[in-house]
Amino acid sequence: MIQEKNQPTELAKLGEFGLIELLTKNIKLKNSSSIKGVGDDAAVIKTTKTQVVTTDILTEGIHFDLIYTPPKHLGYKAAIVNFSDIYAMNATPKQLLISIAMSNKISLEFVNELYSGLYLACDNYGVDVIGGDTTSSVTGITISITVIGEANSNEIVYRNGAKETDIICVTGNLGAAYMGLQLLEREKQVFQEIGAQPDFAGKEYVLERFLKPEAKKNVIELLKKIKVKPTSMIDISDGLASEMHHICKQSQVGCKIYVAKIPIDYVTAEVAENFNLEPLIPALNGGEDYELLFTINVNDFEKIKPYAEIRVIGHIMNKEQGLNLITEDGNFIELKAQGWDTYAQ
Amino acid sequence: MIQEKNQPTELAKLGEFGLIELLTKNIKLKNSSSIKGVGDDAAVIKTTKTQVVTTDILTEGIHFDLIYTPPKHLGYKAAIVNFSDIYAMNATPKQLLISIAMSNKISLEFVNELYSGLYLACDNYGVDVIGGDTTSSVTGITISITVIGEANSNEIVYRNGAKETDIICVTGNLGAAYMGLQLLEREKQVFQEIGAQPDFAGKEYVLERFLKPEAKKNVIELLKKIKVKPTSMIDISDGLASEMHHICKQSQVGCKIYVAKIPIDYVTAEVAENFNLEPLIPALNGGEDYELLFTINVNDFEKIKPYAEIRVIGHIMNKEQGLNLITEDGNFIELKAQGWDTYAQ
Repeated sequence: MIQEKNQPTELAKLGEFGLIELLTKNIKLKNSSSIKGVGDDAAVIKTTKTQVVTTDILTEGIHFDLIYTPPKHLGYKAAIVNFSDIYAMNATPKQLLISIAMSNKISLEFVNELYSGLYLACDNYGVDVIGGDTTSSVTGITISITVIGEANSNEIVYRNGAKETDIICVTGNLGAAYMGLQLLEREKQVFQEIGAQPDFAGKEYVLERFLKPEAKKNVIELLKKIKVKPTSMIDISDGLASEMHHICKQSQVGCKIYVAKIPIDYVTAEVAENFNLEPLIPALNGGEDYELLFTINVNDFEKIKPYAEIRVIGHIMNKEQGLNLITEDGNFIELKAQGWDTYAQ
Repeated sequence: MIQEKNQPTELAKLGEFGLIELLTKNIKLKNSSSIKGVGDDAAVIKTTKTQVVTTDILTEGIHFDLIYTPPKHLGYKAAIVNFSDIYAMNATPKQLLISIAMSNKISLEFVNELYSGLYLACDNYGVDVIGGDTTSSVTGITISITVIGEANSNEIVYRNGAKETDIICVTGNLGAAYMGLQLLEREKQVFQEIGAQPDFAGKEYVLERFLKPEAKKNVIELLKKIKVKPTSMIDISDGLASEMHHICKQSQVGCKIYVAKIPIDYVTAEVAENFNLEPLIPALNGGEDYELLFTINVNDFEKIKPYAEIRVIGHIMNKEQGLNLITEDGNFIELKAQGWDTYAQ
C-alpha cells in the first residue's frame, strides 16, 4: 500500500472485503483437520477425534484498556484465553475464528498489530485461523473468538469428576496478573493526574502475566507423558476461590486448601505489599492468571511429585465438610468465591 | 423470580453467573453429536461427518436498530443469518454458541426476549445451543454467534465450482428485506419528526423479510431429495450482484443474468416504486434476503424445473466474457457489485 508516512490508514478506504483480504492473505493451514479456511460461507473441518469448543467475548473499557494495552498483546491474549479453556478440557486447540467489531476511526496499523499478535499466538500453539467476521461498530472495539480443539474421547476432563481424597493441584503461581493490572491502573491514574511516566523496573513479571499470558500447553503435554489424567480440571480465569467453587459444585464435593501451599511469586507478593494487600487476596480472588486447577487420584501423586510446575495445595473432601482454607496456624476458614463479575463493577 | 410488576430487572442484581444460569437452564440437547453443552470450560462434540463452521458479529447501531427491532426478532435473526451460511455450504446446522456484550442498563426482560427468539430459531432448525459468553459493555449491544453444521464430505458445496454452461439459480425472491429496512427507516424518521404512528398495512411482507428472515432449509432438503448437488453456492446477504461476483471470482468464470428472470415480489416492487426506486436496484444490491444463489449442471435442469421456489436467472460463461446483465430489450450491461460495506456508510 502506498500512503504518506506516519499517516494512519483509515479502514473506510479499504472497505470490509479489502480489510479481510489484507488480514487473511498470508494464512497457511497447519492442521490436517482444517480442510478449508477463510473465503467461503463457512470453514470446513474433518476429524475422527472428539472436539471441544469454547467462545469468549472481550469489550473495550471492560476487559481491556487501550491506554496501556498494546494491540499486539491484545490480539495475543484474546487467543490465549480461549486456548486456556481448551487445555482445561485436556484437549489441544486446533482452529480459531475471530470476529471483530470496531469503529472506523481505528487505523489499519492498529488492526494489523492486533492480528499480528493473534497470528503469533496461533503459530506458537499450532492453531489455524479458519474464519471470522469483521465489521464496524458505533464506538469501541469488541473481539469475539471461538476456538475448536481435539482430543480422544477418553481423554476429556470435565469439572465434575473430583472424588473424595483426590489431590488438588495448581500450575505455576497465582495472583500475578491481578497485581499487574493494579499496577497499570495506578500508573495510568498518576500519568493522567500529574503526567509522570511510570517506572516498572523490577515489576515486569506481573505486567507480563497480565498483558501477555500463556496457556498451559506444557502442563497438558506433561500430564500425557507421565500418564496422569486429572479427575476434574478448570482454568483459573476468575481466581482460585471461584474456580474451586465450580469444581466442588459440579463434582458435589468439599475441599481443604492449605494457605501455605498456594504458590505466589515473590514479585507478586512484593507488589501486593506495596498496595497494602495481603498477597493471599490476589492469589485467591484475582483473575486472569490462566493457570490450571485440577484434581488427581491419590495414587498418581508420585508421578507428579518431581515436577515443580505442579503444586499440590490440598485435597477433596466430603460435600458436607464444605470448602475450607487451612491457615498457617491450622485454623479452618470458609473459602468464599469472590471472582470477577463484569456486571458487578 | 419475584419482582415488582412492570419494574425492569437490572442485570447487575443477577450477576454474570446468575444470568447465564437463568438463560441456559432449560436447554435440552437434541443432536447426537452434541455430547456436552453449557457448563464447563468448553462444549464437547463428536461426529463422524465433515463439519462446517461460520461466525457473525452484529453491533447495535450498525446491524440493528432497537427502535424498530423487537428483541425476540433480533435473537431469531441473529441465529438465522448463521444457519443461512451453513445451508449455503449444503450442510445442516447442528450446534450454536452465542456471545453477547451489553451494558448493564439493559433489563433482564429484554435479554430474556432476545434469547427466546434465539431458542425459537434453534428449535425450528434443530440446532443445539452448546455454549457462549455473557459480559457487559460500556455501551450498546454486540452479539456474536458461531454455528457448526454437518454434511458428508462429498456433499459440501463451495463458491468455486461453477463451470461454463452451468445454470444460475436463485431461491425465493430478492430485494424484499432491503425495502423493509427502507420503510422502517422512513417511518422512524417521520415518527421522530412529527410523532406520527406508522401505517404498514399491505406492506407486512417486506417488513417480515427484514425483521424475521428464514434460512433456506427447505431448498437444501429439496435438492437432496431430487439428487441435485449444486456446482457452487452462496447465500445472498449482501445482494445478488455482490454474491455473483464472489462466485465468478472464485470459480474463475463469467456470467449472463437476465433482468426479466430475477424474481421480485409485487409488494417489494410496490414499495420500491413508492420510494421512486427501480425494483431491480434492491433486487441486485439490497442485502439480507438470505436466499440462496447457486449453479447447477445443465443436465440437472429438468430435475429442478417443477419447483417454483427455484428460479433460473441465467448461466455461467467464460471468464473473458465478464459478468453481464441482459436487459429486457436484449442489451448487455456490466453487472457491478455494490453490496453493503459497513465501513463505507
